[in-house]
Amino acid sequence: VLAGLILDSEAEPASRPLAGKRVVITAGPTREAIDPVRYISNHSSGKMGYAIARAAERAGARVVLISGPVSLTAPDNVEVRPVQTASEMLAASEKAVAEGCDLFVATAAVADYRPENRAGDKIKKTSETMALPLVRNPDILATIAGREDAPFTVGFAAETSDVARYATDKMHRKKLNMIVANDVSVAGLGFNSDDNAVTVFWPEGQESIGPDSKQAIADRLVVLMAEQNDRA
Amino acid sequence: VLAGLILDSEAEPASRPLAGKRVVITAGPTREAIDPVRYISNHSSGKMGYAIARAAERAGARVVLISGPVSLTAPDNVEVRPVQTASEMLAASEKAVAEGCDLFVATAAVADYRPENRAGDKIKKTSETMALPLVRNPDILATIAGREDAPFTVGFAAETSDVARYATDKMHRKKLNMIVANDVSVAGLGFNSDDNAVTVFWPEGQESIGPDSKQAIADRLVVLMAEQNDRA
Repeated sequence: VLAGLILDSEAEPASRPLAGKRVVITAGPTREAIDPVRYISNHSSGKMGYAIARAAERAGARVVLISGPVSLTAPDNVEVRPVQTASEMLAASEKAVAEGCDLFVATAAVADYRPENRAGDKIKKTSETMALPLVRNPDILATIAGREDAPFTVGFAAETSDVARYATDKMHRKKLNMIVANDVSVAGLGFNSDDNAVTVFWPEGQESIGPDSKQAIADRLVVLMAEQNDRA
Repeated sequence: VLAGLILDSEAEPASRPLAGKRVVITAGPTREAIDPVRYISNHSSGKMGYAIARAAERAGARVVLISGPVSLTAPDNVEVRPVQTASEMLAASEKAVAEGCDLFVATAAVADYRPENRAGDKIKKTSETMALPLVRNPDILATIAGREDAPFTVGFAAETSDVARYATDKMHRKKLNMIVANDVSVAGLGFNSDDNAVTVFWPEGQESIGPDSKQAIADRLVVLMAEQNDRA
């Protein structure tokens, strides 16, 4: 009986606001191959996405974490699906959403462009200058938010200037339910750091969180996502 | 007296073929910034360079290891000088060689090209396609081998086809004393692997080493380098 009481207590809405929900999270960078040796990538460590996956699992959700190449350990009870490129991340995201998804949280720093052609052999140096032809990658966030069965969709905006304006523009343009903006130009915060400071925007409000550890920020984000999802 | 004998024994040429020599090694990838967030890099783990640094130190050399961004621990008694870009790696190499260098071993996978302009702010997506303007990076190996006071210079060739021909061409063109060729297209060997198989070329001979651990290959490479340096 005591065990039952404790379990009930742990399952109460206040402490497990995502109980029974299915959450899909993208995290880390993508890598876009130029040839078998070279690639384009970015400085995303994946820490924010992994922290949100941990927070969402603790909040009671069943979590699928679609992860680019990072050097992080999978959180307990989270299903990690590793990918390399933006195209692979989109395919994995559509599959996971089709399997059933209440909240989609896109923390990944997806490469906007990929090399037009992936060379089969290593490219030889021939000239002093060259132009690498790039093509736009699919927009994972807009694709998921634009589905008929779109889940509550949360985007991230890593900007170096005019953060609030770019972030809210992105939220409205891509039809997101929420966007989390951080300024990567602040030293010691953001990419590769364990700490962060963010401002969360949703259509009817906003809230600033931090500076604090990424895990503390993730815990608060999960509460805000659950609240706004319940209202949606 | 006994301690003296042991020290003499450890210092004998057969077991410490680089005793008293100064060795400069480059290792890892370089990262070339596109903007504050994005970069071009490659799959080099730095393991081969770190293994050679360890082997050279054990062989009695004073070792400076100029390292791009890797997730490896510095070998004992090796001075690591971290760099990011090819230009930084060249500057650090010229400085280390000017300080005194008997052998220069270039294992780093240096980016051949860098973006022509590093954007101060994150580049905004504007069009479906774009061409990223690239310019050639300095040739670190040829620069060091072309110095009046050039040390014994060892290059590496990571090729995906026609390995022997490209490697020996590179040795003669860049006036190297030795080149180590491996075929990165062989599954399970080379980049990011703990094992490797290489063929070493010098003007008067060649030797194949492995498949074996990178450390075992590094130990044999150091013996070959010391032998050919003594003859040079």
